[in-house]
Amino acid sequence: VRELRIQTERKTQLLELAENLRPLLEGLEGSLVTLFVPHTTAGLVLQAAGPGATAVAGDLESAFERLVDEGWSWEHVHEGDANPWSHVRTALTASSISIPFVEGRLALGDHQAVFLAEFDGPRERSIYVTVTQ
Amino acid sequence: VRELRIQTERKTQLLELAENLRPLLEGLEGSLVTLFVPHTTAGLVLQAAGPGATAVAGDLESAFERLVDEGWSWEHVHEGDANPWSHVRTALTASSISIPFVEGRLALGDHQAVFLAEFDGPRERSIYVTVTQ
Amino acid sequence: VRELRIQTERKTQLLELAENLRPLLEGLEGSLVTLFVPHTTAGLVLQAAGPGATAVAGDLESAFERLVDEGWSWEHVHEGDANPWSHVRTALTASSISIPFVEGRLALGDHQAVFLAEFDGPRERSIYVTVTQ
Repeated sequence: VRELRIQTERKTQLLELAENLRPLLEGLEGSLVTLFVPHTTAGLVLQAAGPGATAVAGDLESAFERLVDEGWSWEHVHEGDANPWSHVRTALTASSISIPFVEGRLALGDHQAVFLAEFDGPRERSIYVTVTQ
Repeated sequence: VRELRIQTERKTQLLELAENLRPLLEGLEGSLVTLFVPHTTAGLVLQAAGPGATAVAGDLESAFERLVDEGWSWEHVHEGDANPWSHVRTALTASSISIPFVEGRLALGDHQAVFLAEFDGPRERSIYVTVTQ
Repeated sequence: VRELRIQTERKTQLLELAENLRPLLEGLEGSLVTLFVPHTTAGLVLQAAGPGATAVAGDLESAFERLVDEGWSWEHVHEGDANPWSHVRTALTASSISIPFVEGRLALGDHQAVFLAEFDGPRERSIYVTVTQ
């Protein structure tokens, strides 16, 4: 298992991983790359890359905050640093995504990129990278 | 990587893939089949097959449209053909699903089928099929 | 494919699988373990383990019930035992999750555990366990 470590900067943040992922894929052999997030308040999302991506990421951030509202009545919120809404938002994203690996590259769509979805930042986060045959 | 191409017919549509997937699985050897959608406004959902499936699919379509409302204030909506709600709805589904592959068949549940979840149709869509050992 | 069978106890229930999963992983060889749920009203979620986990699970259960409301107008609800909200809640979780497998153990985060997310219990449920190389 290879590990990517990345620093997020905001409480809720969709962070594109393209440039950071590339060195971790070097020399890998296999047909499928699986990304896995070993956290319970951050997940993975495949979303729009390229021009306009920042605005789409911003819209996704707001939408997740709106879908799962901090103002709901929560059981877990009375304990210190509790943040149950971050856990629920994470549960709506993916903890693992498997992407076909062809000639040393992720077979993403033309307008598709991998994003870490941070819901309780800023923190240092890990993504595990596994290749299977 | 094998590729299934499929035409969706409506803006929001859950489209069962059973019959279309079968020929792509022929001759594959391995223990796990991974389906991957290389798009940012369409995803995958495993849902009810058989009698009643059309009604359930219709309920899922309405529920996704209700969960993420086009009427929310969006940042990205001012740019031409923007459709941020389609991106958010997609982020709530799966971009990849891995299904055990046993004796040449997907080991789905008795009442379970694979659906493409289209959120910005009608379009021609791709699904990549990878088998691993 | 190995199969874990488990009995859920409530209508909506996040049920931690740690102890139940362990014997199914014994003797497995490979680099990635994929869990798959062959049901359309139950899914998988990776969430907080250890102290406080019960409260977080309770918050997740309430949040899914709130996100997708039984009171919405449903098409499928007029047919006998219909429960379209259970299908939608399930579609928001994962039907499969792939976790790196290192030295005979799932490489989960320190505070991370696998939960079955039951949305139409109580029922007996299956989880399929596949290891790939």
